[in-house]
Amino acid sequence: MAMETGLIFHPYMRPERTARQTFEWGVQSSIACDKAGFTSMMISEHASQIWENIPNPELIMAAAALQTKTIKFAPMAHILPHQHPTKLAMMVGWLSQILEGRYFMGIGAGAYPLASYMHGIRGEEQNTEFLNAMVRESLFIMEKIWKREPFFYEGKFWKAGFPEEEVALTEEDEQHKLANYSPYGGAFPEFAVTGFSPNSPSMRLAGERNFKPVSIYSGLDALKRHWEIYSEANIKAGFTPDRQRHAVSQTVFVADTDAEAKRLVMEGPIGYCFNKYLIPIWRRFGMMDGFARDEGVDPDKADLEFLVDKVFVVGSPDTVVEKISALFEKCGGWGTLQIESHDYYDDPSPWFHSLELVAKEVAPRIKLPGSILREAERTQAA
Amino acid sequence: MAMETGLIFHPYMRPERTARQTFEWGVQSSIACDKAGFTSMMISEHASQIWENIPNPELIMAAAALQTKTIKFAPMAHILPHQHPTKLAMMVGWLSQILEGRYFMGIGAGAYPLASYMHGIRGEEQNTEFLNAMVRESLFIMEKIWKREPFFYEGKFWKAGFPEEEVALTEEDEQHKLANYSPYGGAFPEFAVTGFSPNSPSMRLAGERNFKPVSIYSGLDALKRHWEIYSEANIKAGFTPDRQRHAVSQTVFVADTDAEAKRLVMEGPIGYCFNKYLIPIWRRFGMMDGFARDEGVDPDKADLEFLVDKVFVVGSPDTVVEKISALFEKCGGWGTLQIESHDYYDDPSPWFHSLELVAKEVAPRIKLPGSILREAERTQAA
Repeated sequence: MAMETGLIFHPYMRPERTARQTFEWGVQSSIACDKAGFTSMMISEHASQIWENIPNPELIMAAAALQTKTIKFAPMAHILPHQHPTKLAMMVGWLSQILEGRYFMGIGAGAYPLASYMHGIRGEEQNTEFLNAMVRESLFIMEKIWKREPFFYEGKFWKAGFPEEEVALTEEDEQHKLANYSPYGGAFPEFAVTGFSPNSPSMRLAGERNFKPVSIYSGLDALKRHWEIYSEANIKAGFTPDRQRHAVSQTVFVADTDAEAKRLVMEGPIGYCFNKYLIPIWRRFGMMDGFARDEGVDPDKADLEFLVDKVFVVGSPDTVVEKISALFEKCGGWGTLQIESHDYYDDPSPWFHSLELVAKEVAPRIKLPGSILREAERTQAA
Repeated sequence: MAMETGLIFHPYMRPERTARQTFEWGVQSSIACDKAGFTSMMISEHASQIWENIPNPELIMAAAALQTKTIKFAPMAHILPHQHPTKLAMMVGWLSQILEGRYFMGIGAGAYPLASYMHGIRGEEQNTEFLNAMVRESLFIMEKIWKREPFFYEGKFWKAGFPEEEVALTEEDEQHKLANYSPYGGAFPEFAVTGFSPNSPSMRLAGERNFKPVSIYSGLDALKRHWEIYSEANIKAGFTPDRQRHAVSQTVFVADTDAEAKRLVMEGPIGYCFNKYLIPIWRRFGMMDGFARDEGVDPDKADLEFLVDKVFVVGSPDTVVEKISALFEKCGGWGTLQIESHDYYDDPSPWFHSLELVAKEVAPRIKLPGSILREAERTQAA
């Protein structure tokens, strides 16, 4: 099986963009990716950051629902401590029905302290244990809501219930009937979680619960650790880890030549965003360290050009195939390359051209090491 | 000023419709109404009822945002006790920005006990006083979130805050900047509340807080009382009541002839919905009493045909102008006729034809009594 291509939309729009422009860019991107053959679009949910200013990814998915055909959507992630589980469960179920199953569900505990604060979680309560207890209780309630069996639950953080359907007053009467907001097909959606630190506890959780693992690329060592942690926990829990489910987000830009690709990244929206936002925030959260360590350079000297040359996947289709194949050899590969979206609102053409090249000229040439083995076995057996 | 035309979308879709059909019908309706010159589309939010199966009106608004030009959208209503005020405030603010101000906000405490139950409110807590305390606290928090000034609040029902913006680490760095999810233009959205019982406490609240009053039509007496209660409270609070802001929902169907209109209602989706859902639920909540009293008939004998002939506004454009004008004379008029939407998904043409006739041939001929007086004064003065 070849590598799949996805988009991850944070959205990294310049702060001066209006909400309408950001929203429109999300819808346009979903349509372009759907046409290019992308299999998934993940959309962030953030309360505090101006560079990541989508509070409700579901609004973009709803706007794209009737204008796309095969692409799947996922919030990445709904922050469970910030909302009532019943309300969220019903929205997710209804949207998954609207999308006729083209939906999976990223869940998170919240990465930014300011966002937690806005939702009433401050100080001591912002520790991982407390937030994870909220996540667990929320999941417990959501799954009960989706089951549509009577319950009432008074948790530590929320109360919720599902009623008994009332008896019809007459044969004709339908006022007693309950609406069905369970996900499409009645099953729970696939859950996904993201991790970025080398010893990511999210990867362990993903393994234990058999959630889809999504790595925010932060260097080769971290990526290898993610798969080790995930697969170890996954096997221990009685599952069979499948690299095809693993998605890895990366900064990717493809143009007709290497020089053109590098120039467009350095001088365009991607370079601008890294200088104004991502390099400062990566330094703050220690993400630059992993990249610098991979290449044996001083983290303080790791600048935009270093990232473009050594960390991002930038170049002509051939170069990008080589770069990803080299990564695959070192780490074992992944199922979906989740391309980080950037602000090409003013002139989408180089960006959409890049996305098309990845989906049509790069991805089909990259196969998972495991699947190459399996194909070789099949060929020998035939 | 002439009467304005709006749609209210509950959506009264047959229970066997899929969520996707309901959603699609909502988007199609918004586009048709926008083209026909409707000024507003209200969309319900319900957790429990199969005939009113939209849990998240904002998803339809988002899908319609880029495909409509002048129509305003309003949830009618967001149920404040069911969701975290910060999360809701940010969604509302962001959506209002996406719609560039084509937005106002219906708020409610929840009409269906089963829906409250699902969100953890049961038994004694379902009394009006408790629910209204939740509404007040939610409004208090939402307004603080929209103001974007630092606070932290530990309420009876929720905790919430807004952080101080952090200091930039370098001149270039923008990672500290906070996203802005206040409503379009920075002002609070106009609030609206619905009432249907004759002594509706919502109408008093609307008057006191200068919210937009929306009457679900339940007979002439109730409608007159609504305006009395609203305007009395509104004057007492120091405002000037304006009938132009009053919206009244009604079942309206216009065709080229009276006979055609009546036949299409009796035999079509409207008749089906009333027999299966609305007549039973109106009997249960006592709404049939007001209609029957208006006409001096026994409420138990009030059937679909009685409603079509005596309560709904059904007929040719001329007949409908007469019927509404007669109502206006008796009650003093209203600003917007909010037409109850029905399930014409299989064949939209008679429905969209009816909506067009109301907006283009009926509404312009109906003027508010107050504005007729004012125009007469202007003519005399000129």
